[in-house]
Amino acid sequence: MQKRSETTRTNILLSAVGLFARYGYNLTGVAEICTAAGVSKGAFYHHFSSKQSVFLAIFNDWMNLLDQQIQSARQSTETVPQALEKMLGLFETVFLQAGGYLPMFLEFWSQASHDPLIWQVVIEPYQRYRRYFTALIQEGIIEGTIRKIDPQIAASTLVSLTLGLLLQGLLDPKGMDWVDITRTSVSSYLQSIYIEKSEN
Amino acid sequence: MQKRSETTRTNILLSAVGLFARYGYNLTGVAEICTAAGVSKGAFYHHFSSKQSVFLAIFNDWMNLLDQQIQSARQSTETVPQALEKMLGLFETVFLQAGGYLPMFLEFWSQASHDPLIWQVVIEPYQRYRRYFTALIQEGIIEGTIRKIDPQIAASTLVSLTLGLLLQGLLDPKGMDWVDITRTSVSSYLQSIYIEKSEN
Repeated sequence: MQKRSETTRTNILLSAVGLFARYGYNLTGVAEICTAAGVSKGAFYHHFSSKQSVFLAIFNDWMNLLDQQIQSARQSTETVPQALEKMLGLFETVFLQAGGYLPMFLEFWSQASHDPLIWQVVIEPYQRYRRYFTALIQEGIIEGTIRKIDPQIAASTLVSLTLGLLLQGLLDPKGMDWVDITRTSVSSYLQSIYIEKSEN
Repeated sequence: MQKRSETTRTNILLSAVGLFARYGYNLTGVAEICTAAGVSKGAFYHHFSSKQSVFLAIFNDWMNLLDQQIQSARQSTETVPQALEKMLGLFETVFLQAGGYLPMFLEFWSQASHDPLIWQVVIEPYQRYRRYFTALIQEGIIEGTIRKIDPQIAASTLVSLTLGLLLQGLLDPKGMDWVDITRTSVSSYLQSIYIEKSEN
């Protein structure tokens, strides 16, 4: 069972995400979050210093979940290409989840872009994913499943391609079948960096 | 020589872009734009119905310029791969120009995401670029310089990759040499879809 304090924190986060998605980040205040979560302002400020810190907690919780899923994809597979294929499946889930949240992110980013400290928190995951995939591709080169390419360039390509697909899918959800496009285009990029089995 | 009316319009656009980049979209009003451009409110409303329509005019002017450059890149080259390489050079220029404008775009997008009509204007260029590159890649397949891939998937990959690189470069300008990463990663994707000369 969760402790009461953890339940309160979770309640606040879930209520806030619902309000941000429905009314936007700017139009949602701490008072509305407290009402929706059924907590007092005192209880709110025990857990969070501001609306901004609630948003950052939501963002970090999502990123931590994705990190865990990426690590478990790596642990349950043997070779780097197998891990990459499994991670591609994860990305489809992210895609479907992110759907309703674009306006919320845009509003938050537009505020964060004026504040260097918050901005650092916002961009940290991209830097971390680039480092993670650089190391993973390096590992694939060593195990002989990935061609001798520049791992940093390949990692940036992979992160940029998925970020661009995500953004296009959010900007223009009805434009194409983005889940299908993502699977096909990331797969075809991955195929181009793998060493085919016949080459081994 | 430009007509006086065109000069006024250009003055308004240049003043607005400077104010939007410096103070943000939300904090800039029609009054500030008129003062900076040295025009009356009457003259302003002769050309534009609102601050939003000034933003859309700036956006459309940029997109039209890029369209002209893309078309002239195609006209001055013989094969599709030659045209694609020339367009890659253009993208580096877009990259360097876009640098200071991220906060302005984020603020405008976050407003536009609540308004389906404006949103359509915002996403139209992505749809257009996808169609353009789908046709160009199809042309390359016919002329025998590009492999028999799905042109729509390849076009989406190309647009997503460049959009993702642009976004990462804007989010995290000091994280990497983005112009170099762009050149290398788009080039390596293009190499993977070309038919090598020895195969011809």
